Amino acid sequence: MPYSTLISEFQRRLRLGMVGGGSDSVIGRTHLIAARVDGFYDLVAGALSIDPEVARASARAELITPERSYTDYRVMAEREADRSDGIDVVTIATPPQLHLPVAREFLSRGIHVICEKPFTKDLQEAHELRKLASQSGRLLCLTHCYTGYPMVRQAKTLIREGVIGRVRLIEAELSAGDPGVVAEPKDPGKRHWRFRKSSMGEGAILGEVGSHPFNMASFVSGLKVVRLSARMSTVAANREVYDNAYLSLDYEDGVQGRLWASYVAALQRVTTRVCGSGCLAREAH
Amino acid sequence: MPYSTLISEFQRRLRLGMVGGGSDSVIGRTHLIAARVDGFYDLVAGALSIDPEVARASARAELITPERSYTDYRVMAEREADRSDGIDVVTIATPPQLHLPVAREFLSRGIHVICEKPFTKDLQEAHELRKLASQSGRLLCLTHCYTGYPMVRQAKTLIREGVIGRVRLIEAELSAGDPGVVAEPKDPGKRHWRFRKSSMGEGAILGEVGSHPFNMASFVSGLKVVRLSARMSTVAANREVYDNAYLSLDYEDGVQGRLWASYVAALQRVTTRVCGSGCLAREAH
Amino acid sequence: MPYSTLISEFQRRLRLGMVGGGSDSVIGRTHLIAARVDGFYDLVAGALSIDPEVARASARAELITPERSYTDYRVMAEREADRSDGIDVVTIATPPQLHLPVAREFLSRGIHVICEKPFTKDLQEAHELRKLASQSGRLLCLTHCYTGYPMVRQAKTLIREGVIGRVRLIEAELSAGDPGVVAEPKDPGKRHWRFRKSSMGEGAILGEVGSHPFNMASFVSGLKVVRLSARMSTVAANREVYDNAYLSLDYEDGVQGRLWASYVAALQRVTTRVCGSGCLAREAH
Amino acid sequence: MPYSTLISEFQRRLRLGMVGGGSDSVIGRTHLIAARVDGFYDLVAGALSIDPEVARASARAELITPERSYTDYRVMAEREADRSDGIDVVTIATPPQLHLPVAREFLSRGIHVICEKPFTKDLQEAHELRKLASQSGRLLCLTHCYTGYPMVRQAKTLIREGVIGRVRLIEAELSAGDPGVVAEPKDPGKRHWRFRKSSMGEGAILGEVGSHPFNMASFVSGLKVVRLSARMSTVAANREVYDNAYLSLDYEDGVQGRLWASYVAALQRVTTRVCGSGCLAREAH
Repeated sequence: MPYSTLISEFQRRLRLGMVGGGSDSVIGRTHLIAARVDGFYDLVAGALSIDPEVARASARAELITPERSYTDYRVMAEREADRSDGIDVVTIATPPQLHLPVAREFLSRGIHVICEKPFTKDLQEAHELRKLASQSGRLLCLTHCYTGYPMVRQAKTLIREGVIGRVRLIEAELSAGDPGVVAEPKDPGKRHWRFRKSSMGEGAILGEVGSHPFNMASFVSGLKVVRLSARMSTVAANREVYDNAYLSLDYEDGVQGRLWASYVAALQRVTTRVCGSGCLAREAH
Repeated sequence: MPYSTLISEFQRRLRLGMVGGGSDSVIGRTHLIAARVDGFYDLVAGALSIDPEVARASARAELITPERSYTDYRVMAEREADRSDGIDVVTIATPPQLHLPVAREFLSRGIHVICEKPFTKDLQEAHELRKLASQSGRLLCLTHCYTGYPMVRQAKTLIREGVIGRVRLIEAELSAGDPGVVAEPKDPGKRHWRFRKSSMGEGAILGEVGSHPFNMASFVSGLKVVRLSARMSTVAANREVYDNAYLSLDYEDGVQGRLWASYVAALQRVTTRVCGSGCLAREAH
Repeated sequence: MPYSTLISEFQRRLRLGMVGGGSDSVIGRTHLIAARVDGFYDLVAGALSIDPEVARASARAELITPERSYTDYRVMAEREADRSDGIDVVTIATPPQLHLPVAREFLSRGIHVICEKPFTKDLQEAHELRKLASQSGRLLCLTHCYTGYPMVRQAKTLIREGVIGRVRLIEAELSAGDPGVVAEPKDPGKRHWRFRKSSMGEGAILGEVGSHPFNMASFVSGLKVVRLSARMSTVAANREVYDNAYLSLDYEDGVQGRLWASYVAALQRVTTRVCGSGCLAREAH
Repeated sequence: MPYSTLISEFQRRLRLGMVGGGSDSVIGRTHLIAARVDGFYDLVAGALSIDPEVARASARAELITPERSYTDYRVMAEREADRSDGIDVVTIATPPQLHLPVAREFLSRGIHVICEKPFTKDLQEAHELRKLASQSGRLLCLTHCYTGYPMVRQAKTLIREGVIGRVRLIEAELSAGDPGVVAEPKDPGKRHWRFRKSSMGEGAILGEVGSHPFNMASFVSGLKVVRLSARMSTVAANREVYDNAYLSLDYEDGVQGRLWASYVAALQRVTTRVCGSGCLAREAH
């Protein structure tokens, strides 16, 4: 259903809250632009930072009224659930170790949740969060942003319609990493949370970076992964988590593929290549 | 001043109205996305189409309340000026022959105006509209969208800082035109308003298409055009206006350049190339 | 006829001589590579430089025997014409003011001539050389190298077959110029011959640079230029000849176009764009 | 030593023979163009095809005299070794199962050998050929053509000079395969020799395709592979050999990498990406 129809039915925008994503965040602005560009959401509440000053200034810049600017997401969930004009949905733009506890607070009060990737810090948390969402009867959305591009949808359509023939191989890659990247400090306490085990879990390169090409490959090809092996490494110094992952994949129907997720690739490239048997394929099977 | 500061000072979004730009318009959506992406405007009123059905449906889709959805821009200007919560600014997304009369209604009532290009149908109207704006004390903005791109601003900075040496030549181009373009119908009454003399004026390729590269070239180079000659043609059949313009330009400081604006180029390309004397230039003057 | 057939008929390679093009030349190597890549020519004689040392070393490097390495092209023409195994064809890779006199010597002795561009220093010389060639009954070839590319030939074929519809506009460009170009010295005697009036003629940017896009545009479109106007400038300091040319062109059938030839464009770009009425064109005429 | 110096020392071109590479071959022309473009070789003898008609016509087209056009490479090796003006070097452009026997004939008679890839049909043959070359005291060259490109050499230089920092990861790929590829015929006797086990050996995708990126990666990075694992597959129908290879590689110094060699990739792409620690790298180790 197109957004305009949805809005016409509600006859109002969805009231959006955000946890994290204040002026000291990278991803918060992305969430807001995406929410605003279609005119489908109004940001009306937020716990935008754990730093009260940043939270206050960020809320003011986004025209959130002072009484709906919180510093504690639990207080926010409670109060918003109590208001008659409380938020319909919250978007979580915090570091990953908070995804589960934040989502729990809002889901349990009947508020829909949009969650930044990685989904959670580890697999156990993921199972728990999925169960919580299921019990709550509320939507729990993960931000697979690339599947929204018209070109990606066109690729999916071409493959589904058989234009490239039978799918044979799938190469998926999100190879990131600043060219002049500064290594993490020797003092573990000063490392970026992205490279701390406590916030990300050891394998979070897969959740934060790898989830993009993993999702793209399945979305575009229409095929599920049935088996995989991974070669995980920590390449840069002083990082507590893996920063490079090479995956070998078996998809359904005997299709093979590879996936590369990296924080040490000295570039930023997102590609998914699906190799087919050809436009004019006259293969025996 | 960054938007966030502006908003913090007002402590509210600007109330935006739109004339034209309904669901049967191409450019209306562009105005709305641009207005929303920064969270700086709320669309609260509109005369979105002269077709009452389209106006009503478009307003509903954009969550404009029925009493602020108008079919006549004069009524809209009058009523919005009377409201205590009336619009601060109107954006005009109509065909060009309406730019002057619409702008006049709003400027004369103290409402700021954002105007789609071409500015007006002809030069005489342009002088008149400029005078009206000046007398009103209100802002009259033209949508030179390309100058907002970071890459364009970076180019301007590099040139201003002398990185490419002394500017020598400037090539500017917006060459548009669908590859498989259908010619205009022989019946003049059925032609697209874009190719009618009555709506656009004969030379409006310059205002609608040429204004982009013209603005880009001056913005990026920091140089004004002091003299020009034009070779205007009507290439496609059954068009009442020029659809191709080749301009020969003299900028300040003896810099020469060319500009190409076209509706028959079978592509869509917007480029501005500024040729300098070189990074390591050791020229005598 | 394919080369292999030609060679099979002769049952030997063509014996090639070169005037100019020694180790201190840029274009000589290009001539040799082009001659060798098909296995159609053997370089057997040369007056490769007016500097005897350069001529000798260059000849030795190219395996020209000492008695067929000359320092004076007149002596070369005379002696080669006398030999039973004399050259069949000479390629001229000298500065332009020598094209006419060198070609005259060889054509008048029955030797075919391949000539680097510009054809001659000025129009009068061009007429004279053309007449000489016609009288000699020998081939006089100009090196329009770009028309040899498969992609260019494919473009010509597509246009001839009507794939892009009726040709409407033609943009042709060879915009050259080193980014960090050093200006010519103030002392006229020290200037590069390319920028001296005595070697090139004042307008030789057209012959040396402009001839490429001029030839490409006509080759690809199949249309001849019937009228043109030019805006010629000298942009860089201390040059005795034009270094930038903007041409406005009328082709046959009412097709319009532009051509840009430049030595001050701070890049190197060769493009020819032919805009047609479209694949699915349903135009009235 | 530059070619021109080499030639000056010899004061003649090298006399080249070719086995295979006639008019029904793809790779023969590539060998000839590469040999001719520098003016370093003269093709004077050949056993260009096992089909006597093709051999004769191909020889004639290349101006090989009839008495030096052979149909049997053994006869060719014998006679050329006997001539005072016999070939200095032979280039082998046959299917791979002939590389060893052909090379043996020429090496054992003191004639240098240039060999097309894959080196041999299998590893055992490779060891044998290497030993033969070593015993003969003659050069045995493999055609790693990509390392001749200036851009590749520049990449190697940049890496050696530390411009990209410490090498971290290497991605190498030659992914080939026609988009509309016709599958091999069901009748084994009609399959292309490239996909027959008897001519290529089962794993020859590595020798014919994989050798390019394998060589490039080591050439550019300056690092040797110390360990690898491979995932070999036969994707297209009716092929007797592997047509896709995914390699996981360990280079010296703990550098990791991947290599992809394919005949089913529906494109043709040759890339080697070397990821470094960055231009401004301030890593601890």
